[in-house]
Amino acid sequence: VTTVLRVIKLTVAYDGTPFVGWQRQENGVSIQQLLEEALEPVEGGPVTVVGAGRTDAGVHALGQVASARLTRAIDPATLGRALNARLPADIRVLHIADADSDFNARFAARAKTYRYRILNAPVQSPFERHYAWHVPQPLDRDAMRAAAAPLAGTHDFAAFQAAGSPVATTERTVFSIECRDAECSNPSFLSASSRPLLEIDVRGDGFLRHMVRNIAGTLVEVGLGRRAAGSMAEVLASRDRSAAGATAPAHGLFLVEVEY
Amino acid sequence: VTTVLRVIKLTVAYDGTPFVGWQRQENGVSIQQLLEEALEPVEGGPVTVVGAGRTDAGVHALGQVASARLTRAIDPATLGRALNARLPADIRVLHIADADSDFNARFAARAKTYRYRILNAPVQSPFERHYAWHVPQPLDRDAMRAAAAPLAGTHDFAAFQAAGSPVATTERTVFSIECRDAECSNPSFLSASSRPLLEIDVRGDGFLRHMVRNIAGTLVEVGLGRRAAGSMAEVLASRDRSAAGATAPAHGLFLVEVEY
Repeated sequence: VTTVLRVIKLTVAYDGTPFVGWQRQENGVSIQQLLEEALEPVEGGPVTVVGAGRTDAGVHALGQVASARLTRAIDPATLGRALNARLPADIRVLHIADADSDFNARFAARAKTYRYRILNAPVQSPFERHYAWHVPQPLDRDAMRAAAAPLAGTHDFAAFQAAGSPVATTERTVFSIECRDAECSNPSFLSASSRPLLEIDVRGDGFLRHMVRNIAGTLVEVGLGRRAAGSMAEVLASRDRSAAGATAPAHGLFLVEVEY
Repeated sequence: VTTVLRVIKLTVAYDGTPFVGWQRQENGVSIQQLLEEALEPVEGGPVTVVGAGRTDAGVHALGQVASARLTRAIDPATLGRALNARLPADIRVLHIADADSDFNARFAARAKTYRYRILNAPVQSPFERHYAWHVPQPLDRDAMRAAAAPLAGTHDFAAFQAAGSPVATTERTVFSIECRDAECSNPSFLSASSRPLLEIDVRGDGFLRHMVRNIAGTLVEVGLGRRAAGSMAEVLASRDRSAAGATAPAHGLFLVEVEY
């Protein structure tokens, strides 16, 4: 019997609302666990799934990428259907491809894009309550855009890292950060603006724990006039978590895309 | 003591997923019941809420309009906050206004717009599973648009009415029907198309039971090539429910707007 070792690359979308996050944990159901459990009957044994981004509890993914090593050869389309048949509807495998034998979804990632969504309207939409942070007070979006601009580039992002995270270096490169006005599925009566949603897209080579949520929380403080738009260079230079703003809630965050 | 009789007009959005529908029923929780229960402590007695559209179980609303008669005078903004504090997060009062003493949200409505949403991509999105009908096979959208056009105008829509519905007349006027390609929150890898969503907007003076869902179900049969694009005039003329297509599922339907 010839054993075919093959590595697969899975593109996965999930609604993070009911999960403890990407990574296996003792205290609840994770996306990694469900994917591994869905792969095991196909493989006929234990499988380890490696995700590009270890999203926290409540964080969503439009295009998480994961890798896994299998010994059984199976057609990717058939495998995709088998996995989606086993997975709950809040996790969908969108695409499966063969990958090089040394492919690791986490270490091979060259860029990731995260999106933080804010619904800026007097009343929260029932359709956004798990997918956007509700900020009812008016936000100065121009001030937020001006504050965001200096974050692009290679910086020490220690001020935006969750306290107590053990990492070798806190230097990261943000390739781009964009604050976009977006339409909401609800008509304009939700807000004086017909674009009550604000989406902050951050593309970078890597992200520290809570980095995007801490950036979003700090930018909202700028938008509310509680912090100067010109203060971000100073916050970066401080390397001090307490110099930045509060952590924005998990449910507004999406892992949009991983590039290799 | 002077009793102030006043009529209020409420604009309400709701995620219909967990409810038995707009109207009070024995077998579960309705939106009407929750609104009435939220108003009662303010009024200090029973309140009847009249909705413009009696949406079915699982059907959503972006802009349902309801009326209620109160004896207590209360500031609309204060009342809105009080109601939203009592209602579950899947129902939100977006706006409250004073209305004429004879205003009835159901009988005064001049036009309503319903939207039927279809996700046409190989895999359903976790974020659309309660908000769009998943049709994985490719749809011929031009054929669907051609089929929809003759439905505009004043017709006897008996063929598109749920069997056994007791109404005085099955004649209705559809002011417009539009099949629009729409973007999905998921990036384009969900589908070959970057606009995997199809939204069917129908604006009319009134709607028979299941009328929009039966129109959507029939148009999808056209899109799948199972029914000729030119057959709709014949279906209308038949006045026969069995001549039209299957009823599209409730969770793709939204009451978008009510005009007075």
